Amino acid sequence: MKQESAQELKAQFNVGICGMGTVGGGTFTLLQSNQAEITRRLGRALKVTHVASRRQNPLYDTNDVRFSTDVFAVVDDPEVDVVVEVLGGTEPALSLILRAIENGKHVVTANKALIAIHGNEIFAAAKRKGVTVAYESAVAGGIPIIKALREGLAANSIQWLAGIINGTGNFILTEMAEKGRNFAEVLAEAQALGYAEADPTFDVEGIDAAHKLTILAANAFGIALQFDKVYTEGISKITSDDVSYAEELGYRIKHLGITRMTEKGIELRVHPTLISDQRLIANVNGVMNAVVVKGDSVGSTLYYGAGAGAKATASSVVADLIDIVRSAGDESKGTPGNVPSLAFDSLRSDIPILKIEDIECEFYLRLSVYDKIGVMAQISQLLTDYGINIEALIQKEPDTTLGSDVFVPIVILTGKVEERQMNKAIAAIEDLEQVVEKVTRIRIEQFDGEDS
Amino acid sequence: MKQESAQELKAQFNVGICGMGTVGGGTFTLLQSNQAEITRRLGRALKVTHVASRRQNPLYDTNDVRFSTDVFAVVDDPEVDVVVEVLGGTEPALSLILRAIENGKHVVTANKALIAIHGNEIFAAAKRKGVTVAYESAVAGGIPIIKALREGLAANSIQWLAGIINGTGNFILTEMAEKGRNFAEVLAEAQALGYAEADPTFDVEGIDAAHKLTILAANAFGIALQFDKVYTEGISKITSDDVSYAEELGYRIKHLGITRMTEKGIELRVHPTLISDQRLIANVNGVMNAVVVKGDSVGSTLYYGAGAGAKATASSVVADLIDIVRSAGDESKGTPGNVPSLAFDSLRSDIPILKIEDIECEFYLRLSVYDKIGVMAQISQLLTDYGINIEALIQKEPDTTLGSDVFVPIVILTGKVEERQMNKAIAAIEDLEQVVEKVTRIRIEQFDGEDS
Repeated sequence: MKQESAQELKAQFNVGICGMGTVGGGTFTLLQSNQAEITRRLGRALKVTHVASRRQNPLYDTNDVRFSTDVFAVVDDPEVDVVVEVLGGTEPALSLILRAIENGKHVVTANKALIAIHGNEIFAAAKRKGVTVAYESAVAGGIPIIKALREGLAANSIQWLAGIINGTGNFILTEMAEKGRNFAEVLAEAQALGYAEADPTFDVEGIDAAHKLTILAANAFGIALQFDKVYTEGISKITSDDVSYAEELGYRIKHLGITRMTEKGIELRVHPTLISDQRLIANVNGVMNAVVVKGDSVGSTLYYGAGAGAKATASSVVADLIDIVRSAGDESKGTPGNVPSLAFDSLRSDIPILKIEDIECEFYLRLSVYDKIGVMAQISQLLTDYGINIEALIQKEPDTTLGSDVFVPIVILTGKVEERQMNKAIAAIEDLEQVVEKVTRIRIEQFDGEDS
Repeated sequence: MKQESAQELKAQFNVGICGMGTVGGGTFTLLQSNQAEITRRLGRALKVTHVASRRQNPLYDTNDVRFSTDVFAVVDDPEVDVVVEVLGGTEPALSLILRAIENGKHVVTANKALIAIHGNEIFAAAKRKGVTVAYESAVAGGIPIIKALREGLAANSIQWLAGIINGTGNFILTEMAEKGRNFAEVLAEAQALGYAEADPTFDVEGIDAAHKLTILAANAFGIALQFDKVYTEGISKITSDDVSYAEELGYRIKHLGITRMTEKGIELRVHPTLISDQRLIANVNGVMNAVVVKGDSVGSTLYYGAGAGAKATASSVVADLIDIVRSAGDESKGTPGNVPSLAFDSLRSDIPILKIEDIECEFYLRLSVYDKIGVMAQISQLLTDYGINIEALIQKEPDTTLGSDVFVPIVILTGKVEERQMNKAIAAIEDLEQVVEKVTRIRIEQFDGEDS
């Protein structure tokens, strides 16, 4: 179809890349190595004409393209049609993107923190100028999950989604599960392997996952980006004991980002979660990512792949470039961007994000108690008083390694209860004199009986 | 972006549905139930205005729309913008689609057999008239796999893909594996449950999967649709013994459609396959579908969901409708269909599809032999003579249920060998007088060490 009007169309689309680190370099390389393939798909060429980074990266041969040390030179270059922002961080990325938009250029970004926190402003500016800001690579690396939500599942009311959206965290939990190792040891290895940053806070405390969940939720429900409303809990407090108790009970512990539409409002939360080992997502291991999406018509679908890395992320950056060229159609007619930035043309801004206390969950509780007669009866009674059912229980032999006092670990799986109520019950349990440590609490997710 | 030019655009897109069976009825219902959601995504309404089927289906309230018993009345209706063809079969579906195209209408079809066999003709006609023919629902029901291949992974050279793309077959194999039941018994149950047709040939002999694989391969590699080149083998000869021997060796048996780009040409084959139980796709059970795609940049990605059913299939039909409206832009400017019908603007028509004899595989072999001394040595020597390595072996106790003669089942996993060579080795083994039955042969797929 397109070929027939090829002569009217711009024969070449010019790409400017701002930042030549891992993702920028990967994008540059991919556009070169698969140039023939991409041109055949598009019916016209997609070419890097301008690259900017603080210093020339000797890994990439940029001799044939214009090179600048000032990234703003790219967005001000009248030859550049699309700007790829892969600097990361807030500034100068934000100013750069806004200036690119102001200059009437389309933008592709892999910057999840920037989109999660400043996306509303960026998309509003893009809408005013009639340009597209694409960000498939910002969530789950090479998995085309934004496209699935906005387009493939566009016929559905999305009911919930849940994702393993941080590879580092999943690598750590997988190693803990498969080798019985503890958190600190695996983290150190992940850092040595380059999977985890020197400062691992963003990964292990769930902030990176919260950025991505913010973007997924906005696309699923057509709400504004609301990063500050995400309940975020990391994996640093998960012990290898928790992992093996969970396994004994038929569960895996995964660090999930979950968002769900309920009658009261929208759940938006990142935390370690027990999932039945029968579910496909429980078997997503190592650095891999996966997202399960439940639509009212399609049911559950799952999307799995590499969530990070130069080549996987570049795959999504270039897919966005291809989309922009395809949807831009004939530039002179000015009709780019026929898919709205956040899945919906208008926002459902009135639906509140729920506080974590308002959310109902089943729970895994791990307690350490003095081995005295009657303590289990007391705890059971207390849970009953708060309306909490015990669904499963593990009571272990005394752990004498803790010293001369005889402690017994107790693991309880509860029925569904509002978190507010659970907080009260846990406080009461911790007040018992036989309970010697803070209660460990991990949420359980059953995905409402869905097959996924 | 779109909103600004909304006044210039057609406020409503009119949909005509040909066929009010499962998928047609599901589409009609979904467009009604999620009308508000869809309108918000699109910025304009998508409305069914004309429906045709041999008789009025009392399940659906079509009082507000035009109803015809002649399906051609829909494609000739000047009010209809897009025709949904969900009749199935070749005729009148083919004539109907060609006439819709001739009339300048876009078409959405769920008809996999028709696209696999007549797609080249249909897409050529659509290209001439500048309209879109969309068929996401023809492959893997609600999973947006065509979109992933054509758009989400558009930056990649696809290296291979493998899919569980027939839910009935997967249901049967899952039941056999989980409950140790035999093929005929499970098939009868699947028919009773409505998962399998009264004539189950298309499902269990792999023809349905071959239709879908034809479409996937054309999208992955930019080749023409070549259904007649698919090697197709069904699951009816798999025994519950094979399933349990495979399990013992760490494998599951799945009915896969596989296509792979090699230096010699393209592999295109549907057959029962042993897959390591560690792979995600080996854990896709019941009627669910999944497709693994290996791209050179993204690595392996997997797409999972319901492969059939009114609601899941309707999800993809309506997604196609939404895509058409989005990409149609302003109809008066005539630039619909900015994604090519088969992923590529031009075809790589010169790449040959390989014969099954030219393909290299590892194999599972099951033999039944007289329990005589030396037979195993003879078989080993024979395999060695043909250059075939034995990677694993199970030799069972004699099976005395077969009568007074003492038969022993032997299971062998081989190394990689060209199928032509394996055919010769099997013929030679069957010539041995101690070998009492035809050798059962099932191909093993390792997915080249990929993590999926």
